[in-house]
Amino acid sequence: MLYSKIFGKTVKTVPADATSASHKLLYQSGFIRESTAGRYFFLPLGQRVQQKIQKIVKEEMDRAGSQEMLSPVLHPLSLWEETNRTKTTGFELMTIKDRRDFQFALGGTAEEMFVDVVRKFRLSYKDLPFNIYQFSLKFRDELRARGGLLRVREFIMKDAYSFDADEKSFKKEYRNMWNTYSRIFDRLGLKTIVVESDNGYIGGDYCHEFVVKSPIGESRFLITENSSYAAHEDVAKFKKDNKNIDEKIQIMEEVEAKRGTTMEDGVKLHNKPLWQQIKDVLFVDESGRFILAIVRGDYDVNETKLKHLTDSRDLRHATDEEVREKIHSEPGFISPVGIKEIVNKGISFIVVADESLRTIRNAYGGANKKFRDLYNMNIDRDYKADIEGDIAMAQPGFQSLSGETLREMRGIEVGNIFQLGYYYSKKMKDAAFIDKDGQPKPYYMGCYGIGLGRTMATIVEVYHDQKGIVWPEAVAPFAIHLVGLDLKDETIKKRAFDVYKQLTKQDYDVLFDDREWASAGEKFSDADLIGIPYRLVVSKRTGDKIEFKKRNETATELLDLSGIISKIK
Amino acid sequence: MLYSKIFGKTVKTVPADATSASHKLLYQSGFIRESTAGRYFFLPLGQRVQQKIQKIVKEEMDRAGSQEMLSPVLHPLSLWEETNRTKTTGFELMTIKDRRDFQFALGGTAEEMFVDVVRKFRLSYKDLPFNIYQFSLKFRDELRARGGLLRVREFIMKDAYSFDADEKSFKKEYRNMWNTYSRIFDRLGLKTIVVESDNGYIGGDYCHEFVVKSPIGESRFLITENSSYAAHEDVAKFKKDNKNIDEKIQIMEEVEAKRGTTMEDGVKLHNKPLWQQIKDVLFVDESGRFILAIVRGDYDVNETKLKHLTDSRDLRHATDEEVREKIHSEPGFISPVGIKEIVNKGISFIVVADESLRTIRNAYGGANKKFRDLYNMNIDRDYKADIEGDIAMAQPGFQSLSGETLREMRGIEVGNIFQLGYYYSKKMKDAAFIDKDGQPKPYYMGCYGIGLGRTMATIVEVYHDQKGIVWPEAVAPFAIHLVGLDLKDETIKKRAFDVYKQLTKQDYDVLFDDREWASAGEKFSDADLIGIPYRLVVSKRTGDKIEFKKRNETATELLDLSGIISKIK
Repeated sequence: MLYSKIFGKTVKTVPADATSASHKLLYQSGFIRESTAGRYFFLPLGQRVQQKIQKIVKEEMDRAGSQEMLSPVLHPLSLWEETNRTKTTGFELMTIKDRRDFQFALGGTAEEMFVDVVRKFRLSYKDLPFNIYQFSLKFRDELRARGGLLRVREFIMKDAYSFDADEKSFKKEYRNMWNTYSRIFDRLGLKTIVVESDNGYIGGDYCHEFVVKSPIGESRFLITENSSYAAHEDVAKFKKDNKNIDEKIQIMEEVEAKRGTTMEDGVKLHNKPLWQQIKDVLFVDESGRFILAIVRGDYDVNETKLKHLTDSRDLRHATDEEVREKIHSEPGFISPVGIKEIVNKGISFIVVADESLRTIRNAYGGANKKFRDLYNMNIDRDYKADIEGDIAMAQPGFQSLSGETLREMRGIEVGNIFQLGYYYSKKMKDAAFIDKDGQPKPYYMGCYGIGLGRTMATIVEVYHDQKGIVWPEAVAPFAIHLVGLDLKDETIKKRAFDVYKQLTKQDYDVLFDDREWASAGEKFSDADLIGIPYRLVVSKRTGDKIEFKKRNETATELLDLSGIISKIK
Repeated sequence: MLYSKIFGKTVKTVPADATSASHKLLYQSGFIRESTAGRYFFLPLGQRVQQKIQKIVKEEMDRAGSQEMLSPVLHPLSLWEETNRTKTTGFELMTIKDRRDFQFALGGTAEEMFVDVVRKFRLSYKDLPFNIYQFSLKFRDELRARGGLLRVREFIMKDAYSFDADEKSFKKEYRNMWNTYSRIFDRLGLKTIVVESDNGYIGGDYCHEFVVKSPIGESRFLITENSSYAAHEDVAKFKKDNKNIDEKIQIMEEVEAKRGTTMEDGVKLHNKPLWQQIKDVLFVDESGRFILAIVRGDYDVNETKLKHLTDSRDLRHATDEEVREKIHSEPGFISPVGIKEIVNKGISFIVVADESLRTIRNAYGGANKKFRDLYNMNIDRDYKADIEGDIAMAQPGFQSLSGETLREMRGIEVGNIFQLGYYYSKKMKDAAFIDKDGQPKPYYMGCYGIGLGRTMATIVEVYHDQKGIVWPEAVAPFAIHLVGLDLKDETIKKRAFDVYKQLTKQDYDVLFDDREWASAGEKFSDADLIGIPYRLVVSKRTGDKIEFKKRNETATELLDLSGIISKIK
């Protein structure tokens, strides 16, 4: 390709809102341009990279046995209503009507569509398992687009959906996709950390993010020193150490407590450790049910974990008024002890206790009355929980279950794999196969996503220096950047074109800077900015040789064509 | 690929609304499924074909020097307003607002977007010419979707846009694209006719459709016996033969004419030939201007030609009331003679005469009064036209300009190339390059489209028989359909899998029907339906040989693997 004729030249300016290296460099080097906020043109150089990424993803998906297909982008809104996801998606769903008043959603993710096409066939257990995927446009009505290609409103995503007969079969496929993703990111030159995360609006019980460590990443997570465990704060498990577990259980007593309503006020007044205090947080869920979440005083309540345990969709804090008038307790003085006896009749009310309450004895805290506290509360004896489990938030410095210190890290999420289970197949009619016994059974599902544009930006975040991008060979827009200098000299011009032709004849992708009007300095700095792995120079100075330089090294060599080819091979 | 595991099996039923062969066969063979009317899933087999078509289109576009890029699908509506196309598109534009109330059009074609990205760069004459293209989703809010993939509401289109400094340079690129399209359709096995057509809502002066002859095609056109000229009725030129051109010009006279208002009434009353009568058709354009179109009596007015000549966007027939009250003439008795003197003052009124009025003399027709006609009207002497040109409609049986008979043909439009000229670059701000003289000059543009899904359906329309599809090798989803029979016999099963492995190891794309539960008859009819070029059978009967059959032939042969490979190579 002649650089003089390529559409999308380098520029010196950067977009006013560019903060990330990938945004600046992809703009300056002529790979992308913004149409409107969060919607990008991929210019010829950028599209070449995107396609190289796509090819690698496709090869590995095919190798893993997944089958490529393609679904429409306008989804019948009725499908999203069938799974009630018009209300629960984390992103704002864009909807549109056609001239016949038929309503569509602009696809943000395609679980319903894939279930819908699968249920058009009367499949049997013999047709299972299978995994189908597509590369297709996704729309997300993000409030804020940022970071160039890192968070956009429209992008190409590889989304795959697996259909299995049961969880056992699914788990094999989940592992298969996990390995496939590892291979994909390996080939792309990205070192990923697999982070346990919350499934959010996708549904299902567990999922994993593939994250590339980066200070500008939006994904925050906790990770052990040796990286053996990584999980988002939302779902991270940690070791809850025993405190005074050997202490003798004391008689519970009520005391006067002229204090403020914070945990610290309790610590100060009673001069007891924070961990021994019970933290009571009262929530109301989307159905109006009251949920009293209690944890050890040095922990915080993790709302994601609480939602999963209580099967709630939305949680809000109860108001002071509700605490007084509906629960008949007192803000800052709530206690699980006896609370069920005082709440208004007809109110749905449950107590959820973190398992950490079994690591302490003789706890203190509120007494459901103003300025009154209780000493020596003990679970089982003084109060009971309707649900007991892990609802505590992990924090940097805590220990992982295997006893290593968790620290915080940031990264860019480049891919994710989700267990969906029966989340969709049980909500959608006829999303079932005929099993051996002749009975319909719902599919056990999973889904698997990779965004191409974000992956491209992430590669730039990892592979760049002060001068520009340093593309890994696997995704470089061209293999060779041939710079012609002194081209007004016909002999040299002929020679440069000759080298260009010989290389392209041998199937090398070559970008040839044939501009007669640009200076050597401009051409070299453009080559550095664009970041193609190998730079060749033909000029008066190189004689009948060619100057060879790798983008990521400073040394140059003078070689003949065969020497160049053996270097690149 | 194992057929037992492929998603999208064959079925016997057809969709209720399927009328075309491609719709029925692509459904039955498991290549496509409809989501909602006019929006299709491409199942794995169908997506393979679509991608093979895409690959051929890409290879030829790249070879022609066009550069692939990608634009967003949600276009800022302001761009469409800039060219006033929100009102003029032939398809209904779908629009949508995001949560920030920003308005978008769902891209139906992308001229504005490509001009918009080009004008983000300060290009000079040195950067020209260039041609940029994309494969991207297009949305058309068609009132009626029909024919499976032939007319849909959402599809992948290859759309290319060329930017030149002037018409001379553009014409080279137009020819380049013409040749490229010829190569593309050749490689796809489609014989195309290049038909001159109206540019419609795209803008510009001329364009050509690449049409595949088919009785179910929606594109009707006229073509000479030797195919040297083909054009849509809308734009077709034809030879207007001289009639009584040597007759002596007579004195004009007004006569009584108690007749009805049709042309036939005039012929009957006066007992003169139809061609000698003047046909007067009064139109009103979108600005309220009255246009009197006059043609020789045996021709019809061609509104498309009339629009181009008069630079109108919309034409409607004037009402009887308007004829009487604004023009002061009489329906059925309109005449160009003296009409300008009787119309209401302040009315914009022009006369447009077809050049055919010079092929006759002493014409007859109305006199702008009820029951009065004129004899011996002659252009120049008795009436004048504001515009004179070709506004007559060609018809089957007419002669082409080179004197051959035009006949009607139907076909499917698979591609089109458009001259756009300055249509967009003069409407859109800064759509200009800096010329040698340092001055900005608007781009001279063209655009070039191919829809992938329609191309796929057209191939099926051309390549099928009673039993199913007969894919050309270039686009077949697989090269080889291997049928295993008697697979419950472990020796044969092993042998069949062995053949499958050896072929795939040698990089053949093989679809292997490994189903143990399907009969030989089912497998053979599935193979015929799916239409892969080569069918191999391994069964008890074939011994240590393999049965070989081409899809488009009936003869079978027993060969060993190397014999098979030499046949396929």
